Amino acid sequence: MLSTGTTWSEIEQKIAKQAFAQAYDREITSLMEEVKLRVNSISDLEDLWQIHDFLSAKRHQIDGKYDDRPSSLIFVFAQLLKEGLISLNELEGIEKDKLAKIAALSKM
Amino acid sequence: MLSTGTTWSEIEQKIAKQAFAQAYDREITSLMEEVKLRVNSISDLEDLWQIHDFLSAKRHQIDGKYDDRPSSLIFVFAQLLKEGLISLNELEGIEKDKLAKIAALSKM
Repeated sequence: MLSTGTTWSEIEQKIAKQAFAQAYDREITSLMEEVKLRVNSISDLEDLWQIHDFLSAKRHQIDGKYDDRPSSLIFVFAQLLKEGLISLNELEGIEKDKLAKIAALSKM
Repeated sequence: MLSTGTTWSEIEQKIAKQAFAQAYDREITSLMEEVKLRVNSISDLEDLWQIHDFLSAKRHQIDGKYDDRPSSLIFVFAQLLKEGLISLNELEGIEKDKLAKIAALSKM
């Protein structure tokens, strides 16, 4: 039977957790840098409200993104890979079948 | 009959418009400076979301605040005076009865 991708061994969970933390850290660091750059170049209120809209969208996105339930991990990693927040190398140690699914989904 | 404060002569309207523009300019300038200061000192995501909450509140507040309908002007000026965004001197030329109401309401 093919793996459904929802069973993660202890070692896979450890690798997943570490990759999650790295991706999150990269996303947050890059977001904070972007906000600093944007805020430092505002010249009127409209610019400020655009940053507010951008933060509203990002907050909503980030809140829902890092879902670490085993049944979600394949999809979350595919998304993180697509966005360049992780590389497949960082998932080394995770079952090949899961990695193939992650890689395939990341191209959709 | 006492003035209801809802009738504004042409000259009073001109003074009101100018005071509005000044208050708005002061508020926006100070808000942009504050956001720059706060953003430049963030160290984690929680700090960033606090700024997002602050901007949500400010946006809502500013959107409703500068109501220039004649029936609202007394209350709006009282609020601006209370917040230090205008001074009574800047309203010189407006009917004394209106100024007294503005001053009294600003202390509430």
